[in-house]
Formats: sequence, structure tokens, C-alpha cells
Amino acid sequence: MQVALVLYPHFTMLDIVGPFQVLGDNPECQIRFVASSPGQIADHTGHTGLVASSLEEVPRPDVVVVPGGFHDTQLDRDVVRWLRDVHETTTWTTSVCTGSIYLAAAGILSGLDATTHWARKDRLEQLGARYVPERVVERGKIITAAGVSSGIDMGLVLVERLFGRDYAELVQLAIEYDPQPPFDAGSPTKARKDIVDFARVLMADTLSDDAVADVVAETKGAH
Amino acid sequence: MQVALVLYPHFTMLDIVGPFQVLGDNPECQIRFVASSPGQIADHTGHTGLVASSLEEVPRPDVVVVPGGFHDTQLDRDVVRWLRDVHETTTWTTSVCTGSIYLAAAGILSGLDATTHWARKDRLEQLGARYVPERVVERGKIITAAGVSSGIDMGLVLVERLFGRDYAELVQLAIEYDPQPPFDAGSPTKARKDIVDFARVLMADTLSDDAVADVVAETKGAH
Repeated sequence: MQVALVLYPHFTMLDIVGPFQVLGDNPECQIRFVASSPGQIADHTGHTGLVASSLEEVPRPDVVVVPGGFHDTQLDRDVVRWLRDVHETTTWTTSVCTGSIYLAAAGILSGLDATTHWARKDRLEQLGARYVPERVVERGKIITAAGVSSGIDMGLVLVERLFGRDYAELVQLAIEYDPQPPFDAGSPTKARKDIVDFARVLMADTLSDDAVADVVAETKGAH
Repeated sequence: MQVALVLYPHFTMLDIVGPFQVLGDNPECQIRFVASSPGQIADHTGHTGLVASSLEEVPRPDVVVVPGGFHDTQLDRDVVRWLRDVHETTTWTTSVCTGSIYLAAAGILSGLDATTHWARKDRLEQLGARYVPERVVERGKIITAAGVSSGIDMGLVLVERLFGRDYAELVQLAIEYDPQPPFDAGSPTKARKDIVDFARVLMADTLSDDAVADVVAETKGAH
């Protein structure tokens, strides 16, 4: 079973490392990090990154996970095109955080329920999906997850679908996923209003509308 | 403020990426990944890794985070020696999962309350700490956390100490840390007994007693 973990410049580390950590120890999973330019891909902070192979090396993955990113001004059009192609034959196509913006740009979420980071729901809807404010949204073979840390929850749901409930609980125990956040501020319905407002400004969508429209049109035409 | 994120061969990605993700966007944090051999350090799965600078480049970090690892047969003695040295001047010395075994081997936890991955508490106690089955244990300037995913909780506690409660809540909201695990099997007190027993076998301590004793004696002598 080939698992493609997609990277692009300015991806967010925890978005992809959450699902990676719940899948990565299973010997049935052939893990492949992929990106449009092979080599070291810098994360959104610029402090670190991960090494990827090229998208072309993984033309028929069984499972795809697309992480979110931050500070992006445009979408990686090779990734969008590749997603559009490989989705036809995947068993599971999944995303964390604004990774769902990539799925939507590839036309995969048209008319479907999906989720994303709470601060980016407008972009998701602009691209044709129906935003659902849930942590993990499973529709057919597509699973989308909310912001950043939700990739751990999504990963466990995915592992259950792939390997069964007992194995998923074993993984949860192995990573001691018994979360005890020190505060109760992890969603816009729970955080203090002034903190939500400030976060919304800090995390404002930096994608250019024109650039997004271009990628959608071009990758659709190329298909 | 210099934040040293320590790597060594077979470290576990999520252990270090959890704290990294809550600290990494703060412009006051100068993030440095360090290891005894600079370059790409492979994680415990062998599927990925992170790039580190040398320990010598970061001789006086303000904050230290040591992640856990898996499949290790010995401790990295350069890391143990460096921890013993830098701890004298840190503001905060912290660990996730079996990262506390490193702190203990460096003599930092002697007689102190601390935690680690639930399956490794015997090793922690053998090295002189008092195991406490809590998710995050703060004693003076030392914070230890339980297994793998607990680094997110620990990271938020650390961020509150460094930058205050409002900022910590902002970070929690930004990473949408409102966990909803699909199962309730994340600790040995909650998981099914046969799954706990199986996990205990899978995660058996692979460190050699002799190798650990050697490192403790040598790094103590060198100090």
C-alpha cells in the first residue's frame, strides 16, 4: 500500500507529521513524501523542512495526504494537477487544514461536504465545497480534517479504515494520544473573542484570487 | 531567546514537531535543531528525518527540548554530555516521551518527579527519577511530558510560561488544538488490556543496560 504524503513550499510540519506518525510504523505502508521539486522542501516557518521525491515517481498512490500551509500566495500547480490525476485511482484521498484547498482546486470537492482550518472556510467554499465545521469529515473515499493538529484525529480515522479498530487503538496507545490541552481555546467557538479576532487577522488568506483562478482553469484544461 | 530542539538517530518525529509547531511561529524564538553529527538525522521509522546543526554551535540555549526515540540500543553520549553542560544555564529544560531518559542519564532528574512514555517508566526510575503518571510534569525549570503526542500539551504549557496565557491560547487556536480522538484508548488506564499487553511487547525497551551505565559513568566523569 503506497501512501503519498504531499509537500509544497510553506507546508505546515504538524499537518503532515500527525498523519505520518500514525501511519509510519505500519510495515504495510510504503511511505513516500512527494513534491513538485524533489529535495528539501521548506516549511512555513523557514526553520525546517522535509525531503521529498518527485510527484512523477508516485503516479498511482493508494492513499494521499495533503497538508495545509501558511503564508502562501499561490497554489503549487503541479501538485493540483497531480492530485486531479491520482485521485481517480486512490483508495483514500485526504487532507489536513488548508490541504483541502488543494483538493478543492483540483475539483475533487465540488459540491461535497468538507472541512479546513476555521480561518479559511471562505476560500474552501469559493472553490465549490460545502464547509462543515467538524474536526474530521469523511465522505466516500475523501477525508478532510480541520486545522493543523486535527491531522492526528484524521490519521487515526484513516488507520481504522485501513487496518481496523484494534490496530487504530494500538497506535493511539503507542503515541499516548490522551490529549489534555492546558487551555480550552482550540476552536473559534471556545476561544475568547478578542483572541479569535486577532488570530483571524494573523491568519488571513494570502492566496491571490487571480492566481487561484489561473491554476484551477489551467489544470482543468490540461486534464 | 534561543530554543534548541535536540535530534539523534531514531528520534520520533511527532515528539519534536509538536513543541516545534507551538514555538516556531514566535519571532522571539530563534529555533535551532541540533545533533551530535550535523546534517540529516533519520527518524525511528527511517522514512524521513530532519536537518540539524552541531551541538557545539549552540552552547548556551535558553530553552532545550529533547524528543523521545524508538528502537534505540544506546544513548547518544554527545547529547547526554551536552545536556549536562547546557542545563546549568537554561531557562527551561524540557523533554517529550523517552527524551526524559536523556535528561535522567545526564543526571538532571536525580530524585525529581518526572514522566516519560508509559512503557518506559522502569528505565526512567532506574536512572534516578521518580516516575509520575501525568501528562505534563513541571518541577522548577524542568518540564517532562508523557508519550509522543503529549509534546503538544507540554509545548503549550511552555509557551504560556514564556509568553503568557493570552499568547498560548492564540497558538492553541491557530493550530486548532481542540482534540477529538476517535477512540478512548490513549493511555494504559483506558485501553483494552490485550492491546496494552501487545503494545508493551512492541515497545519493549531496547537500550542495553551496560551501554546506558557506560554513558552515565563516562559523561559524569567528563564533567
